Amino acid sequence: MTSKKLLPEKTGDMSDWYTTLIQLADLADYGPVKGTMIFKPYGYAIWEQVQKTLDKSIKEKGVENVYFPMFIPMSFLEKEKSHVEGFAPELAVVTHGGGEKLQEPVVVRPTSETIMYSSFSKWVHSWRDLPILINQWGSVVRWEKRTMPFIRTSEFLWQEGHTAHATHEEAKAMQEWAMKTYSDLYKEYFAMSGYVGYKSKAETFAGADTTLSYETMMPSGKVLQSCTSHDLGQNFAKAFDVKFQDQNSIDTYVWQTSWGLSTRSIGGLILAHGDNNGLRLPPKLAPVQIAIVPVRAEDKMLDYCKEISDVLTSINVRVKTDARGDSSFGFRLNRWEVKGAPLIFKIGEKEVEAQTITVKRRDTQEEVTLDRKNLVDDVKKLLDEIQSTMLLQSKTFIEENTREAKNYDEFKKILAEHKGYIKVYWNDNPDIEKKIKEETKAKSSCSPIDWPEGNGVDFFTGEPATRQWLFAQSY
Amino acid sequence: MTSKKLLPEKTGDMSDWYTTLIQLADLADYGPVKGTMIFKPYGYAIWEQVQKTLDKSIKEKGVENVYFPMFIPMSFLEKEKSHVEGFAPELAVVTHGGGEKLQEPVVVRPTSETIMYSSFSKWVHSWRDLPILINQWGSVVRWEKRTMPFIRTSEFLWQEGHTAHATHEEAKAMQEWAMKTYSDLYKEYFAMSGYVGYKSKAETFAGADTTLSYETMMPSGKVLQSCTSHDLGQNFAKAFDVKFQDQNSIDTYVWQTSWGLSTRSIGGLILAHGDNNGLRLPPKLAPVQIAIVPVRAEDKMLDYCKEISDVLTSINVRVKTDARGDSSFGFRLNRWEVKGAPLIFKIGEKEVEAQTITVKRRDTQEEVTLDRKNLVDDVKKLLDEIQSTMLLQSKTFIEENTREAKNYDEFKKILAEHKGYIKVYWNDNPDIEKKIKEETKAKSSCSPIDWPEGNGVDFFTGEPATRQWLFAQSY
Repeated sequence: MTSKKLLPEKTGDMSDWYTTLIQLADLADYGPVKGTMIFKPYGYAIWEQVQKTLDKSIKEKGVENVYFPMFIPMSFLEKEKSHVEGFAPELAVVTHGGGEKLQEPVVVRPTSETIMYSSFSKWVHSWRDLPILINQWGSVVRWEKRTMPFIRTSEFLWQEGHTAHATHEEAKAMQEWAMKTYSDLYKEYFAMSGYVGYKSKAETFAGADTTLSYETMMPSGKVLQSCTSHDLGQNFAKAFDVKFQDQNSIDTYVWQTSWGLSTRSIGGLILAHGDNNGLRLPPKLAPVQIAIVPVRAEDKMLDYCKEISDVLTSINVRVKTDARGDSSFGFRLNRWEVKGAPLIFKIGEKEVEAQTITVKRRDTQEEVTLDRKNLVDDVKKLLDEIQSTMLLQSKTFIEENTREAKNYDEFKKILAEHKGYIKVYWNDNPDIEKKIKEETKAKSSCSPIDWPEGNGVDFFTGEPATRQWLFAQSY
Repeated sequence: MTSKKLLPEKTGDMSDWYTTLIQLADLADYGPVKGTMIFKPYGYAIWEQVQKTLDKSIKEKGVENVYFPMFIPMSFLEKEKSHVEGFAPELAVVTHGGGEKLQEPVVVRPTSETIMYSSFSKWVHSWRDLPILINQWGSVVRWEKRTMPFIRTSEFLWQEGHTAHATHEEAKAMQEWAMKTYSDLYKEYFAMSGYVGYKSKAETFAGADTTLSYETMMPSGKVLQSCTSHDLGQNFAKAFDVKFQDQNSIDTYVWQTSWGLSTRSIGGLILAHGDNNGLRLPPKLAPVQIAIVPVRAEDKMLDYCKEISDVLTSINVRVKTDARGDSSFGFRLNRWEVKGAPLIFKIGEKEVEAQTITVKRRDTQEEVTLDRKNLVDDVKKLLDEIQSTMLLQSKTFIEENTREAKNYDEFKKILAEHKGYIKVYWNDNPDIEKKIKEETKAKSSCSPIDWPEGNGVDFFTGEPATRQWLFAQSY
């Protein structure tokens, strides 16, 4: 950044605040090809924290990592009808390779169902070959018209899990395991509350029977689909002929799932927790959990900073001392405020002499003084407190912004006054959803899995309805 | 695999042995698009071991991970003349995106110098912004005509490090650090000996001043360029206008390096260590260091296997118990022989009763009996021994297959009789190298950095020469 722009206030649709903050906090930059982005070290380091945690959960479940080619023959996509309809408008197509025109154009993967399941058909023969449990870390390409860094880019990073099972029950359990793993990750690490629920017919993944999603709400009141887990039924199995001989020697199609969480999650993190002063990162995902900022680069202060830093590093706290000579104390404090370090340590002569540390909590802006002697215990306690405070804020915000509507008039009135979630009884119907979206810009978010059925009235048609849904405007 | 083919003997050019083994050991499969490959779980797990170790070294050096888009505008590549000449014949070109023809075609990165350094020009202003030290894990595409799994594929996985420095000395030190890190990794983890040296002018990376390489030899006598580290001088800095104000406020171009190690390394590993019975994996990279194979799936045996497995897992040994009911004891033993687990534990009634373990060393085929009581110490010792034995084998093989030639006749005679390395005095000359290659299929491998200058005679021209080079046929 040459000329650092000031951070605008986080109000309205917050797009100016958002894009300015991404640059100021050194998270990302725009790529030269329209809609692409560059993950700078600080932004990528957040993703590495996510990867480390999620990869561990995935491996513990017995899912193994693989890597499939990024190039998929166009003909593969065409095998599953609704899949190709869903993805065709967003494909990047390679027509030339090695100086020659290709005989068959290939697409850069928008997702890997088709290329993976073509292999599954070769790998699976008997019930003993099942389940197949694989996962891939990589990038995918969906050529988007309207883009927004992290939230929607032409190329993004993600993991995609793909499994094949002998029974539908097993596949359903896998779909649910993936969503449970994701929602735990969002709550415990991102400190982001949300609803787990089924997507409407119109919003279900192209080729799936059902899609589970984690739906979070941003301070603008718009919601973000934060990751998805699909029950693919036997749709792809039939398209790609993935069959096995069961224990009675009968040929049966496998039951499949796929599930993914992407760098979009980091966009959600920025939007959900950032404030007028910059980022606020939850301790469990912050690349730098504590920024140690000495007033000046004097030996006495630097020694004290090093001592503190060594103690904290030894208990695996991620610490960075910022004594960069080209910037003032105030500038350096502000740098870590903008970058959202959960704790900022201010170290001056006073602190060195008294063997204390002046600490700023980034989440609440409170300042406290710690005793050097109790440093380890106090730091652990503070980081835990910040993590849980941020989750509680998120939970409260969503609860306060979930409102009920009995009919379409109430629905429109709430939308005009509040945004946020609107809870309604509704009979899932794609034509009606389309109409609502055209009229209000809101669409269904999900039907939460832990909401029981009831005897209600469809808010749009007035007919009897048993399932409750959340509607909202969304990213 | 439906019908498992038997492993042919590892002789001749060994390509049939190699491709059959990759399928039998479940390392990889062919992708649907020509020249691409699928990394199956077992093959990818070896890459994950490499990543874990190398990523740690990279981070300890202060290099930070990033992610740049895979799409690069064609015009970026054209900015550095020799770079585009080197890569143009191998590019994959995207001409359509989102259903429309693109205004400017984009290429899928063959390497990321151009897209990264275009950003460096925006990131670097003052000497205080230097050095820039970044690394990227990902895949790149080079459309190859002749492909071979792992060794040469159209898309491959790698890391690419990219740095910018204020002085040439600093950049040179970085180039050497990267190669030292790679050669240590090859020796300590891959158990593969080799030469570190400079590439000839003809073989230097397109756009670099010099290229350092780690050159290993395969049992066929052909050599493999196993990773490279480039001193880019100011070539790209000038092409992309990456300048900084030095401490005297003078505008200066940065000095740059780039360095990469790819999944080609796994191809080298397979070729170097495999034998007529299958893979032989060095313990430090083996996804399964010990395969525990009970004679039958009986409770008593399974309990004993579990006890052993728990003890070893607790000291971080990677263990897998194979009691799959659909295959015999002999078949399961053979599976881990083919998959190259360094140690195979055979557990029968005899072992349970005597509280012993019958162990097969995969490297030497020796069988030893371990006492359950000394298990932890004995296993550690055995794994260390296998690792060092395999490295010693590799070192001895290369030494025995490095021969000297005084003139071109001797050179051709050695090639006809032995293959392997030929050590010669030579004045690096691209025209002569081309001629030698056409006549003998051999080309320069490298000029080892630790070989002193001498007063020699150019083996081809008979003129005085001071540097010694290695020539060989190569992959």
